[in-house]
Amino acid sequence: MNTLPDLLDRGVTEIFPHNAESDRPEENLAIALATTQRPLRVKFGIDPTGSEVHLGHSIPIRKLRAFQDQGHTAVLIIGDFTARIGDPTGKAEVRRQLTEAEVRTNVQTYLDQIRPILDFDTPGRLEIRYNSQWLSQLNLSEILDLLATMTVGQMLAKEGFADRYGRGTPIFLHEFLYPLMQGYDSVAVQADIELGGTDQKFNFAVGRDLQRHFGQSPQFGLLMPILPGTDGVQKMSKSLNNYVGLTEDPVSMYSKLEKIPDAILPQYFELLTHQDLDALPINPRECQKLLARDIVSQYWGAQTAQQTQASVEAMVTQGQTRHSDLIPEFSLDSIEFPAKLFYLLSASGLCSSSSEARRQIQGGAVRLNGEKILDANWVAPDKSGLTGKVLQVGKKKFLRLAP
Amino acid sequence: MNTLPDLLDRGVTEIFPHNAESDRPEENLAIALATTQRPLRVKFGIDPTGSEVHLGHSIPIRKLRAFQDQGHTAVLIIGDFTARIGDPTGKAEVRRQLTEAEVRTNVQTYLDQIRPILDFDTPGRLEIRYNSQWLSQLNLSEILDLLATMTVGQMLAKEGFADRYGRGTPIFLHEFLYPLMQGYDSVAVQADIELGGTDQKFNFAVGRDLQRHFGQSPQFGLLMPILPGTDGVQKMSKSLNNYVGLTEDPVSMYSKLEKIPDAILPQYFELLTHQDLDALPINPRECQKLLARDIVSQYWGAQTAQQTQASVEAMVTQGQTRHSDLIPEFSLDSIEFPAKLFYLLSASGLCSSSSEARRQIQGGAVRLNGEKILDANWVAPDKSGLTGKVLQVGKKKFLRLAP
Repeated sequence: MNTLPDLLDRGVTEIFPHNAESDRPEENLAIALATTQRPLRVKFGIDPTGSEVHLGHSIPIRKLRAFQDQGHTAVLIIGDFTARIGDPTGKAEVRRQLTEAEVRTNVQTYLDQIRPILDFDTPGRLEIRYNSQWLSQLNLSEILDLLATMTVGQMLAKEGFADRYGRGTPIFLHEFLYPLMQGYDSVAVQADIELGGTDQKFNFAVGRDLQRHFGQSPQFGLLMPILPGTDGVQKMSKSLNNYVGLTEDPVSMYSKLEKIPDAILPQYFELLTHQDLDALPINPRECQKLLARDIVSQYWGAQTAQQTQASVEAMVTQGQTRHSDLIPEFSLDSIEFPAKLFYLLSASGLCSSSSEARRQIQGGAVRLNGEKILDANWVAPDKSGLTGKVLQVGKKKFLRLAP
Repeated sequence: MNTLPDLLDRGVTEIFPHNAESDRPEENLAIALATTQRPLRVKFGIDPTGSEVHLGHSIPIRKLRAFQDQGHTAVLIIGDFTARIGDPTGKAEVRRQLTEAEVRTNVQTYLDQIRPILDFDTPGRLEIRYNSQWLSQLNLSEILDLLATMTVGQMLAKEGFADRYGRGTPIFLHEFLYPLMQGYDSVAVQADIELGGTDQKFNFAVGRDLQRHFGQSPQFGLLMPILPGTDGVQKMSKSLNNYVGLTEDPVSMYSKLEKIPDAILPQYFELLTHQDLDALPINPRECQKLLARDIVSQYWGAQTAQQTQASVEAMVTQGQTRHSDLIPEFSLDSIEFPAKLFYLLSASGLCSSSSEARRQIQGGAVRLNGEKILDANWVAPDKSGLTGKVLQVGKKKFLRLAP
């Protein structure tokens, strides 16, 4: 389990205000944690844009869990307000306007993906808040009040704005409101600590200013590194295809992780595992394997991790290197479409009968490419929508659907 | 009466879009005026800060009247929203927060002062709108939409902002919203034309952009010069004491105007009178007198203007130069306080009896320092509140109240 030094040191780039620079207990997070009479409120914000969650995203969630384990409250802020209004200039693809239903679905998908990391069950350890609840209530007079807390110069000093202003790339005025909206979220949930990547420092500082403005104690900011991708060069991202998704099948996950470059191994261990960093194997190859097995076991359990390692090693020995070959295939040729899911599960042998298949679906054990399907009457309309996907039951049985 | 060329030429610094530069009828105000099938809506905004209205302020009001006389609608926008919220930074004295009652009183005082200029009576010629009606209804999503119509670079190009940013003087973010709020007023009242001083060009252009954004035809901007004060050097302002208030007594008004520097006479004639500029007296002294009599007659009637000129000239001949001496005084020594106004009017001889005094008050003929008093039971609480003020009945009878 986490200890206090681990909590504030491991995988932490910066805490501000800086403990070392201040004797004032209210500006020292270690003292605040040691002396608090109540659970602290640890804020983390997410955009409900529906993207796949990968290991890079898991870093602050893991830290949130560490705070939960010390008895504090994780406050997940769903940024549904901006998702619902989109970007008024209509330029940014990521800011396209989402419906309420889309937001709800995306949030559910997100929560399903991080469920292995966060403590969803212990009472008082998790709050999920939608920021439309307070942002949609603001009127012009309150917004003028928020804006009046900052100057144009301060805003233009923000990384990103400074570059764009210097290059003459247009900055639209509404963009100045986003850091203030994020900051106001901290006021609304009375955050004690906010977690995020190092690129969030400005926004966290705005939150501190607004909390002071509204008579609250300003939050601490806890900044964490951005994870490099499996290529060891660029930051992990789906578009660069150097990522490991949290719901990837164990073989795929293991195979990607067991060959990451040596140079980033220490970072991966520090940020993604609880392994003792001073007791890692000396042999780099052993290190890679330990990392892969550790992470697979976090998402699929220790037993699956061990089996996965064994099968991957067996396959490599047999000279098969395409990891996709390691998942048994099931050809959809014999299936008539539209096809009921429970029939597919029984026809493919993943379940022993259609009725067992229905029970497994209703019990939440069935996933298609990592996404849980709970509707026992779910129907696949056509073959092409299934081809190449992984169908699984529980944590151990999976098949790749082939044409 | 005004003719069309007078309307668009006399006292006009700039109209934009520029008629001369465009063949498109929708960008030519002269064509719009000549061909419109409905009264155009001519917007003018005022701050209900309760300040005394002087001749400099009267210029756009006179132009509004000229549009009214051509059958168009003057739309007076009372900026009560900003007056009610004040300046969130609390720095600007002019933006101190006013109560609803203060705003109401200030607006009434303002309207009383411009009543001699504007047509308040012809149906359909005047609309008075309070911008809190629409601004207080805006929510964050609508405000983001307004802000997204402009870039930081465009806003910083605005005169005033550019200087301050260059000098490093803080510009608070909420200040960027004020031009957008003024522009949104144009959307809310569907303005066809906006009038104002040359310093308003940026704000009018913002109004045009927002109207386009909301699917309206953009307004024309009609910019008018800033009036130099009676010193002929700096712009007319109360704080520089180079002003002529619209409710000043006729002797004071006449005396100030008959000695303004020759250099600014043509401007005063152009902006403040209907005199034919090609037929002014050649003798500068005669010019000054004509100007003074013309303006006094606008606010006090032709007869009073003539009498005022006569008494001022007689007094000057007799070597009395303090113009305040030209108004007969009435000593308050004999009056017991609190004093009823109708009693004061009768005791001072301004009215022949208390009952005539009550009739005159109810008929709207009685003013104290230019402010109309309509309550027949109005009571002056003490002597000091009256001392030095001018009490008048109708346009011809007035007295200065002496201790």
